[in-house]
Amino acid sequence: ERGEHLLVEPLNDTIGFYIKANRQIGEWQTPFQKLAIYDTPQYGKIFRLDDYNMTSEREEFIYHENLIHPALTVHDAPRNVLIIGGGDGGSSEEALKHPSVERVTLVEIDADVIKIAKEHFQAVHNGVFDNPKLRIIIDDGIKFIRETREKFDLIALDLNDPIGPAAALYTTEFFQHCHQALSVEGLLTLHIGSPTAHPERVTELTQRLNGIFSIVRPYTMYIPLYGAQWALAVCSDRHDPKAFTTEEIEQRIKTRNIQQLQFYNGETHLGVFALPNFVRNLVADKNK
Amino acid sequence: ERGEHLLVEPLNDTIGFYIKANRQIGEWQTPFQKLAIYDTPQYGKIFRLDDYNMTSEREEFIYHENLIHPALTVHDAPRNVLIIGGGDGGSSEEALKHPSVERVTLVEIDADVIKIAKEHFQAVHNGVFDNPKLRIIIDDGIKFIRETREKFDLIALDLNDPIGPAAALYTTEFFQHCHQALSVEGLLTLHIGSPTAHPERVTELTQRLNGIFSIVRPYTMYIPLYGAQWALAVCSDRHDPKAFTTEEIEQRIKTRNIQQLQFYNGETHLGVFALPNFVRNLVADKNK
Amino acid sequence: ERGEHLLVEPLNDTIGFYIKANRQIGEWQTPFQKLAIYDTPQYGKIFRLDDYNMTSEREEFIYHENLIHPALTVHDAPRNVLIIGGGDGGSSEEALKHPSVERVTLVEIDADVIKIAKEHFQAVHNGVFDNPKLRIIIDDGIKFIRETREKFDLIALDLNDPIGPAAALYTTEFFQHCHQALSVEGLLTLHIGSPTAHPERVTELTQRLNGIFSIVRPYTMYIPLYGAQWALAVCSDRHDPKAFTTEEIEQRIKTRNIQQLQFYNGETHLGVFALPNFVRNLVADKNK
Amino acid sequence: ERGEHLLVEPLNDTIGFYIKANRQIGEWQTPFQKLAIYDTPQYGKIFRLDDYNMTSEREEFIYHENLIHPALTVHDAPRNVLIIGGGDGGSSEEALKHPSVERVTLVEIDADVIKIAKEHFQAVHNGVFDNPKLRIIIDDGIKFIRETREKFDLIALDLNDPIGPAAALYTTEFFQHCHQALSVEGLLTLHIGSPTAHPERVTELTQRLNGIFSIVRPYTMYIPLYGAQWALAVCSDRHDPKAFTTEEIEQRIKTRNIQQLQFYNGETHLGVFALPNFVRNLVADKNK
Repeated sequence: ERGEHLLVEPLNDTIGFYIKANRQIGEWQTPFQKLAIYDTPQYGKIFRLDDYNMTSEREEFIYHENLIHPALTVHDAPRNVLIIGGGDGGSSEEALKHPSVERVTLVEIDADVIKIAKEHFQAVHNGVFDNPKLRIIIDDGIKFIRETREKFDLIALDLNDPIGPAAALYTTEFFQHCHQALSVEGLLTLHIGSPTAHPERVTELTQRLNGIFSIVRPYTMYIPLYGAQWALAVCSDRHDPKAFTTEEIEQRIKTRNIQQLQFYNGETHLGVFALPNFVRNLVADKNK
Repeated sequence: ERGEHLLVEPLNDTIGFYIKANRQIGEWQTPFQKLAIYDTPQYGKIFRLDDYNMTSEREEFIYHENLIHPALTVHDAPRNVLIIGGGDGGSSEEALKHPSVERVTLVEIDADVIKIAKEHFQAVHNGVFDNPKLRIIIDDGIKFIRETREKFDLIALDLNDPIGPAAALYTTEFFQHCHQALSVEGLLTLHIGSPTAHPERVTELTQRLNGIFSIVRPYTMYIPLYGAQWALAVCSDRHDPKAFTTEEIEQRIKTRNIQQLQFYNGETHLGVFALPNFVRNLVADKNK
Repeated sequence: ERGEHLLVEPLNDTIGFYIKANRQIGEWQTPFQKLAIYDTPQYGKIFRLDDYNMTSEREEFIYHENLIHPALTVHDAPRNVLIIGGGDGGSSEEALKHPSVERVTLVEIDADVIKIAKEHFQAVHNGVFDNPKLRIIIDDGIKFIRETREKFDLIALDLNDPIGPAAALYTTEFFQHCHQALSVEGLLTLHIGSPTAHPERVTELTQRLNGIFSIVRPYTMYIPLYGAQWALAVCSDRHDPKAFTTEEIEQRIKTRNIQQLQFYNGETHLGVFALPNFVRNLVADKNK
Repeated sequence: ERGEHLLVEPLNDTIGFYIKANRQIGEWQTPFQKLAIYDTPQYGKIFRLDDYNMTSEREEFIYHENLIHPALTVHDAPRNVLIIGGGDGGSSEEALKHPSVERVTLVEIDADVIKIAKEHFQAVHNGVFDNPKLRIIIDDGIKFIRETREKFDLIALDLNDPIGPAAALYTTEFFQHCHQALSVEGLLTLHIGSPTAHPERVTELTQRLNGIFSIVRPYTMYIPLYGAQWALAVCSDRHDPKAFTTEEIEQRIKTRNIQQLQFYNGETHLGVFALPNFVRNLVADKNK
């Protein structure tokens, strides 16, 4: 009958979820957003940006492994990776597990996210900020992608939901700039919403991507901290992640000696792209 | 700033989810449990048993298709199906989509569940209660399975969570009785908990099943009404659902002319069995 | 660990309260609003209008007795009472406990409120709808008060909060029309918000009333179903409810043989007008 | 649609309330309990002990003024005051507003409550910890009251609810020890539960007190941070707080030059003792 301290997060206007917190570890107002860290019995420490759950100690691997490995594994020899957002370091850490990767460029607008993640989320970044292959640029991702002359083998958009300020990073124009910054064999990955909680968002973003990339492959997995099944997409002009067998992926994981995978394996590589019929309908390419 | 009418359901002691209701359509106390129906913006009508969400108009297909088709499709010619529980008719309806099925026996302890489902959940049962191949037996599943001399090609346990009275239907003894009631090529399917919300339950039930069946294949999918990813299992001495290709499953769906599948297809058949590493660890058979 | 069915109501943007419901008894969309009835362990049946708690079986007496008796008891011989709103019958029932009252006119815009209250809230109306002294007029209170040529000894505004459509019944213009419809010795009563949850509303409405009536006496009591302390006001040109002693009020209660009072007595008559300093500050008449 | 950080507190099994928090300022596990401070839009900083709301910057005066002044004002010349619990300093500060008070002894079991209140709750203690008339004893109140040979003019029990460890400070035995530690004209004050949320507690504690003291006067006020109307009691063998007039109390407030009262005045002194009939029934002395 005691009081409780609940983190409540809506999925849309009529459904949502809650996570009991033991305590709040800290809160910081940066020039860009409000950061907060809570300790929870279920997920360990949770990192919140502007009152949205972003990552947590105990389930971060689900999102970060899935944002990076399905795309990076199908590239024969990725060398140059760009992460836009991702200041917690989790995506960078996954990318640098691929030995051919020579450099990961992390473009994060908010230096405080990195500072706080460094201090509090060892379980997420796993020391990646000390890796000399990681280049950190504190800048607006929109500006960076428009101005860069580099070509990347993978661009991963590791961003807030396309609501508020982050919406500008989900426009057709922005996606086109990403496309231009990719090498010929390059791939783009990003999250595109929950098929059950915001199906229109999934459909709209997929259509936008279909207008730019030859191959757009939505995939889904349940992300506990986001309270639902979530859709991501791999976009490319060359590589189709569904064109691989389980054994081929297993072989690449082995050859590249990728360690500490808590989610990704040869079976899940294909499993996440196995879309239920109702999700197929959401992401059907009407032009094809 | 108005008041709201929320259905709140815990997943475990520290996490849970809520669904806004428009209104409650009815509530009935039966000799066995409390039934309630709510109308919700997100899922249409929801059917609750003893304050647990059981099924809903708009997402029932996720659970019912996955409880039935992965097992029934890999059987060459299933004829005799047993559903224990499942008074909403959803599982029976899916089973009867397979043309070789001659009879589905539905053993439901609570006649009122069927009565109310008939009236309010057309979207779930889709008229199956009028199908002459469906035999309804109002009885205790434990008693039925102990006494039956029939052999079934599929037994699907379509039950409440293994808490309270339903716990008796998740014991080793009960599973052994199910095993005895299966034909040589028969399969058992059931749900075994959420890998993230109650990992111990998933592990314990898998171990129990591994002690009885030669082949136990856990599989997972996100079930919106249960608020998380959920694990089910196919158990058999003969059939391994993972031994099929996507194309073989697609061919069977086509040959059997299975209609109105909103989730299940040749890809998801394998996709749901593609376990992330952390789920593999939960369900590892320590004896093998 | 079971699910719950909660009625959640905000008090303002950042605080609120919840009441667990056993079940919803019914819901009706009328031309004016949404009505709903829930059964709850704490308050018995609750009547909700447009998702706001309005009244309940077990605590209705707190609001209804306080809306009626402090004003009506200080009038020497009230004969003609007007209730605007109040379709649940609770205020009318209290008014008719005063034997000098010859007629209560209930002006309710929504006939369905009365119909449903009659059927489900005997505990609130206590049969008052069969009392020949009660005249029911189904009409807009604004229109009625503008057009009536009657003079009333008490006008009680038994309305929704001054948000949305009900706001028009809290304007200076409407209060002036009420003033004109009062007999020389007549009194107006109404609720004016929660001093802690919406202090500005309390201040603003008091100022508005101070501009019209010579005597405005705010008073407060905790109303469980509204989740907080609430302020009401008695307004008059002649009668000051604070000018009576406890003994005088007790004597009037006895002489008038007022029965079944669960809240009101000679002490509470003065007690509710005993404003804490912080409430005095909210309702201070700046003109005096 | 953003996430929220809610402090949820049940009033009993089926009702409760929530307060939105901006952030948690700190949390400390002491040898006795868990302390936590939150910043909230509604109440400023809130102090929580073992997940119960205890006090807050913006509404603490309601509880602290009411615990102290109704008793202390009716004593002609109180000199020696004992506060058991009350480590936030709020009650001590109110007691020391009476100029005849020579010493306030604060017996708090948990030194950390005082330490943290000093640092974070200036708005509650208002510097009282620097007052030389305040003697702080870090000790178990049960032990102190059993062993003390002092006589107090007021003992105020400023404790957690009578649940868990605090229950031992609400027994007949403990109350008898308090009685023995009072001067002939001494008074005891304490809170005894919410008449609407736990009526049995109010009744039981009142009966227990009636067995010991000649005069037991329950009184009530709405305490926002406790989410409901709450009952307190003044107990004495000599002084009846209801035997004073509003004017007499006003005169004493003036003579004693008591400043910064945000709640208490001559009217509320009597107003809080004006019990509604349903509360009278709860606290009726069956022996009289």
